[in-house]
Amino acid sequence: MLKELLSRRVECLNNSEISEFMSLIGQGDIISFAGGIPDRNIFPLKELRELLNSLMAEPGGPDLFQYGSTEGSGRLKEYIISFLKKRNIKASDEEILITTGSQQALDLLSKIFIDPGDRVLVENPGYVGGLGAIRSYQADITGINLAEDGIEIDLLEEELAKGRRFKFIYLVPDFSNPSGIRLSLPKRKALLELAGKYGFYIIEDTPYSELNYYNEPLSALKELDTEGRVIYLGTFSKFFIPGLRIGWICGDREIIRLAGLAKQNTDLTSNSLGQELIAVAGEKGLIEAQIKRVKPHYRSRLEEMGQALEKYFPKSTSWLVPKGGFFYWIRLPEYIESRRLLKKALENRVAFVTGNSFLANPEEGNNYLRLSFSNCPQEDIETGIKILGEIITNWQDF
Amino acid sequence: MLKELLSRRVECLNNSEISEFMSLIGQGDIISFAGGIPDRNIFPLKELRELLNSLMAEPGGPDLFQYGSTEGSGRLKEYIISFLKKRNIKASDEEILITTGSQQALDLLSKIFIDPGDRVLVENPGYVGGLGAIRSYQADITGINLAEDGIEIDLLEEELAKGRRFKFIYLVPDFSNPSGIRLSLPKRKALLELAGKYGFYIIEDTPYSELNYYNEPLSALKELDTEGRVIYLGTFSKFFIPGLRIGWICGDREIIRLAGLAKQNTDLTSNSLGQELIAVAGEKGLIEAQIKRVKPHYRSRLEEMGQALEKYFPKSTSWLVPKGGFFYWIRLPEYIESRRLLKKALENRVAFVTGNSFLANPEEGNNYLRLSFSNCPQEDIETGIKILGEIITNWQDF
Repeated sequence: MLKELLSRRVECLNNSEISEFMSLIGQGDIISFAGGIPDRNIFPLKELRELLNSLMAEPGGPDLFQYGSTEGSGRLKEYIISFLKKRNIKASDEEILITTGSQQALDLLSKIFIDPGDRVLVENPGYVGGLGAIRSYQADITGINLAEDGIEIDLLEEELAKGRRFKFIYLVPDFSNPSGIRLSLPKRKALLELAGKYGFYIIEDTPYSELNYYNEPLSALKELDTEGRVIYLGTFSKFFIPGLRIGWICGDREIIRLAGLAKQNTDLTSNSLGQELIAVAGEKGLIEAQIKRVKPHYRSRLEEMGQALEKYFPKSTSWLVPKGGFFYWIRLPEYIESRRLLKKALENRVAFVTGNSFLANPEEGNNYLRLSFSNCPQEDIETGIKILGEIITNWQDF
Repeated sequence: MLKELLSRRVECLNNSEISEFMSLIGQGDIISFAGGIPDRNIFPLKELRELLNSLMAEPGGPDLFQYGSTEGSGRLKEYIISFLKKRNIKASDEEILITTGSQQALDLLSKIFIDPGDRVLVENPGYVGGLGAIRSYQADITGINLAEDGIEIDLLEEELAKGRRFKFIYLVPDFSNPSGIRLSLPKRKALLELAGKYGFYIIEDTPYSELNYYNEPLSALKELDTEGRVIYLGTFSKFFIPGLRIGWICGDREIIRLAGLAKQNTDLTSNSLGQELIAVAGEKGLIEAQIKRVKPHYRSRLEEMGQALEKYFPKSTSWLVPKGGFFYWIRLPEYIESRRLLKKALENRVAFVTGNSFLANPEEGNNYLRLSFSNCPQEDIETGIKILGEIITNWQDF
């Protein structure tokens, strides 16, 4: 009976790779380059505990466990406004919606923009969860390939010049997942110009923007935007803590209002305890301090992995060295299917994520893998890369 | 530009009455019968604080702030299985999905079942958030009116006999929101029989099932179901605490798998801190103790409101006295529009929710209101009802 009662979009949901790697989290005896998750050992646990205790002792203590408003905690929004201001982004209270992680932002925006068959642009490869949210609303997805400095603007313009209307482009301009690529400043400006010319929105997702290990940050698209075309997504998950599921959308007031209406029907409100805890952590300077603390931590893992890749991966493989974020994106020789490599790697207790699900057309590249260095203990990185390198070097048609 | 880029479902989202009453929460100088929310003053704050501190001191402390699996915390699912078992409902780990409140359950199930134009049955009046979730997937909603003992089975059968296919019926069988009505045991059996005969699912939402102030509980539809037709939704929000946003779906393994895939794209995972805190509160007996504690608390508010209604509301109004839950559903004489009554009431610092948004066809009844007694201090109930009663009694065409 079930099958005949399901919606058509269920066919678009069969993307279980996130689940697969989520389920690899916490298996102790495996070297995991799989989940794009922060290192639990660097969370400021003691400080969080003190803040929680002091919040609970305040007269507002019970409100930590009560429903809050759909739009989100006023205190948290105030902190986010000050956080954005330091990054040269101006926003008012009505231009912010608190979301249950920035994954929910992707769902809500897809909900308010996409009818089945509507066209959407994505960077290719791009974040699997973003693609998943967009796909689950039955969009027609066009991927724009990446160069070392971000999406190929010429290809984008070519696509736009065909005259078909696109609702938005979704991209992670800083140290993208999985590519590690950063969109250059000239390309940011060019993208904004195209958005103006062809009338589409830009969804700028920024989970890794703070995790910039070498250079000064580049201006956010939102900072450069003079026409209200950029919808900016932020999250505390990568540079602070993910387990409270708190993110936000910053955008045009009417978009925020509609996304808020969608949120009402989706989960009513984000959890109060997490919102207040993050707000007070922000007020006390703990978040900015944590950003300073995690950057050298992840940078040394990035470098450790880079050195190990140079040492153990054969010439037939290639990658760009990222300047931030959590990931290396590796191209294998075409005769090695990443799914079969993963099988072999798991037999040797090493995990990673195959590349297919990050592609606009998942069938187009069977020879990519994403290696995350963020959550792998420094001392295991070389061992894990060595094991992978040896399997690749000695590849026979397993 | 925005308008032409929005999805068609945005037209189904313009239901801001939840927002309206959410925004009335916390205005100190108003007597509010609006939000269907628990009393913050009865939350077991001291115990929650102790549990949080001990959780954070465990070796798993950092995991409270880390991503968890999409399906939900194993520890919490184990507690939920034991909770359900006490209520004569058998479930295995793979038949449970943790959700971000039971509002998310409604969203996920709508996502996997509803294509635009699909037919869905609801009790009428019914929970506004359930209607909102279903509407946002552009379903064609048919309301089945309520008698004192639940939906009119004859009307339901008449509707079904027309031969159109319905995907599911959504209802709150125990002390429904807003009606306060409980579905009788014979009607539960009749409903299950019809679901079998006509091939549709039953979404049984149970937020108020524990808040049964006088009688023994009735068997859940899920308990009576022998064919896997019932999808059971649970939440800790009403009898324990809502602010952590933790609920669950218990259903057929394949439905749980698909809802889990939908959840992945929707918010990835529910917050870890809340899941673990509720799990440990359950293990330590705090949740069952809290249920025992809140029942007399809310019962005395229910009775206080009942007495005040008898005393101050004119004969031209009518209501049923609920035996559980949080609400009185009041019928006004037809010449009083509840929206205009609300305006007058707010001028006199009393709030409630107008009835329209709870109706399958919101235009069909302008003379209903929902009064919630759960979150109004006992000593304010009579005052508030007296003010409302006087406005109604002295109604002129304001």
